[in-house]
Amino acid sequence: MPQYKMILDLDTGIDDALALAYAIGHEDIDLIGIIASYGNNLTSVTAQNSLNLLDLLGASDVPVFYGASHSITTDDFSVMPVSKLIHGDNGVGDVDVPRSSRSVSEQSGIDFLIEAAHQYKDDLIYLPTGPLTNMALALQKDPSIAQLIGQTTLMGGALTVPGNVTSLTEANISQDPEAANQVFQEQKNLTMVGLDVTLRTLLTKKETAAWRATGTEKGKLYADIMDFYIDAYKTLKIDERGAALHDPLAVAVAVQPDYIETLDLNMKVTTDRFTGDYGRTIGDAKKLLDPTTSKAAVLVDQDRFVSDFQNMMLKVLK
Amino acid sequence: MPQYKMILDLDTGIDDALALAYAIGHEDIDLIGIIASYGNNLTSVTAQNSLNLLDLLGASDVPVFYGASHSITTDDFSVMPVSKLIHGDNGVGDVDVPRSSRSVSEQSGIDFLIEAAHQYKDDLIYLPTGPLTNMALALQKDPSIAQLIGQTTLMGGALTVPGNVTSLTEANISQDPEAANQVFQEQKNLTMVGLDVTLRTLLTKKETAAWRATGTEKGKLYADIMDFYIDAYKTLKIDERGAALHDPLAVAVAVQPDYIETLDLNMKVTTDRFTGDYGRTIGDAKKLLDPTTSKAAVLVDQDRFVSDFQNMMLKVLK
Repeated sequence: MPQYKMILDLDTGIDDALALAYAIGHEDIDLIGIIASYGNNLTSVTAQNSLNLLDLLGASDVPVFYGASHSITTDDFSVMPVSKLIHGDNGVGDVDVPRSSRSVSEQSGIDFLIEAAHQYKDDLIYLPTGPLTNMALALQKDPSIAQLIGQTTLMGGALTVPGNVTSLTEANISQDPEAANQVFQEQKNLTMVGLDVTLRTLLTKKETAAWRATGTEKGKLYADIMDFYIDAYKTLKIDERGAALHDPLAVAVAVQPDYIETLDLNMKVTTDRFTGDYGRTIGDAKKLLDPTTSKAAVLVDQDRFVSDFQNMMLKVLK
Repeated sequence: MPQYKMILDLDTGIDDALALAYAIGHEDIDLIGIIASYGNNLTSVTAQNSLNLLDLLGASDVPVFYGASHSITTDDFSVMPVSKLIHGDNGVGDVDVPRSSRSVSEQSGIDFLIEAAHQYKDDLIYLPTGPLTNMALALQKDPSIAQLIGQTTLMGGALTVPGNVTSLTEANISQDPEAANQVFQEQKNLTMVGLDVTLRTLLTKKETAAWRATGTEKGKLYADIMDFYIDAYKTLKIDERGAALHDPLAVAVAVQPDYIETLDLNMKVTTDRFTGDYGRTIGDAKKLLDPTTSKAAVLVDQDRFVSDFQNMMLKVLK
C-alpha cells in the first residue's frame, strides 16, 4: 500500500521521463496524475510524451492533464534552442516512442491539483520538475492549498552554485520567476532540489547499457533516450563525465529525504528585472530570524542515490 | 594557557573593535598581532584605531603591522561614503579614543603573517575581517603558507543570502575579488563566516547600556562607539532591530565552531567583470565532486552567541 499520493508536474523532457519511471517503480508512491507543463518543450508535446511513456511502462491508468502553456507574465512560450539540443526536437531525445491512444484529460491540471489538495491533504506530494506556473495559478485560484498540500518538492533553482541559464538563474525558475516567487513565499513545507545537488548525480552509458541489456522494448527506448542526453551533456560541455539526474533525484528525496542534507531557509526568487539577478533563488534577508517554511537541498549522497536509481530503473525496465 | 595563536587582520571599524575586544577576552586565544587592512577606512586610520583600542583594553603588548593599502588590482583606495556613514569618519563612530603612544611595527604585515605561519603552523588562526588582499599577497610571496596555517576563518561573503554592496556582493569580498578568489582557491581549511549568519546576530542599545553601566572609561567609550553603529543600522534601514555582530562572530566561531552549522563546499569568487556578478562568493560547479577545502557558515545559534558575546564584553570592559 503506497504511503504517498504524488502529482508530477512534468515538462517531459528526458530527465522528466526518468522521474516518471522512478515514481512508477517506487513502492511508496501512488502516482495519481501528471500535469503537463511547458518548459523543455510545448505543453502539447510534453503531454503527449507523458502519455506515451506511461503506456510504455504499463501505467496507462495514470491520467495526464494540461497545465498552463506559458508563464504568468507572458502571452506565449517558445522552446529555447538549448532545450532542443539537450532533449531533442521531440523532447525525448528524438527517439520514436510508440504513440499512446489515450487522450489528455479534459479537466485542467490546475483544477486537478486543487481537488487533490483538498482530497489528500497531508498525504499529497506535489512534485514540479519545470516552471512553477501551475502551482502559482492554483494558489491564485484557491489560496487554501498553500496549507493543505503535505509537501512540495521541486526540481529547480540554485542556491550555493551558479545557475545553468545564466550564472544567476536556473532554467526552471527562470521560465517564470514571478510564479516561482509566489510559490516560495506562500507554499508550506517546500523543498528545493536544485543544481546544488542534482549536478552531483551523474549517469553514464555504463548504466544505460544495462538498461538496453534487459532486452525489453522499454529498456531499449529508455537507453536510447538517455544516451541522447548523455551525448548532449558531453557535446555542450555541461559535464563530460555523465548527465545529471535532476528530476528523478527530486522524486527520490520526496519519499526518501535521507539522500540529501537540507538547509532550513526562507527563500525568495528575485523578481526585480533591473538588478541583474532576475530569477535568482536566494535567502530572504528580511526573514532570516523568522520560522522557516522552506528548505534547500545542499548536499547529496550521490553514490548511494545513483546506485539505487540504477536498481530502480532495472526493475522498471525489465 | 591559550590553545590558539591568532592574527587578526582588521580594517578597524566598529565591529572590528568588537572582534578585537572579544579576542583579547577569550581564554583560548593568544592574540599575537594585528594586521591593519584598508576597507572601512584607510590603513593609516585602521592601524591607529587598533593601537588605541589595544591600549584602552590594556593589551599594549600586542603589535600592529601595516597590511596593503589597496587591492591587488588597483593603485589606490578611497573609503566608500557608506563606510563613513556606518563606522564614522574616524572608523570608530566619531568617538575620541585616547591616542596610543605606540607606533605601528616596522615589519610588514605580510611578512609577519608568513613568519607566524612557519612558526605556529597548525596552532595559528588567521582571521581577516576585511578584504583578503594581505593573505593573497602572502600566498604570492610564499605559497607554502596555504598548507601551513592551521585555519583561516574570515568574515566576508554571502552564499545563501544577498550581498550588502549589491545583491550579489558583500563589502569585504567586493573590495578585492581577485585576492579573495586566490584565497578561496588555495588556502586549506577555510571557513567563510558571511552575511548568511552574521546578519542574524543583532546587538541592541539594551546591551550597550550595560557596557556603559560598568562605570569604566572603556565601557563608556565602547558603548558610545557601538551606539553609533546601532543608530547607523537604523538610519540606513539595514536593520531597525539592532546591529550585526559580523566580525566578533567570526572570532568566536574560530575557537568555538559549535555556534554555527557549516556547509562543506569548494567556493570561488567571481572575477569575471562582465557577467554581472563580479565579486560574488559561490560554489565552484567544477569542483562539486572534489574533496572540499572550505566551508561556509549557513546557520548560527544566534541567541546563545549574542548572550555569550555580551558576557564576554562585560568581562573585558569591567
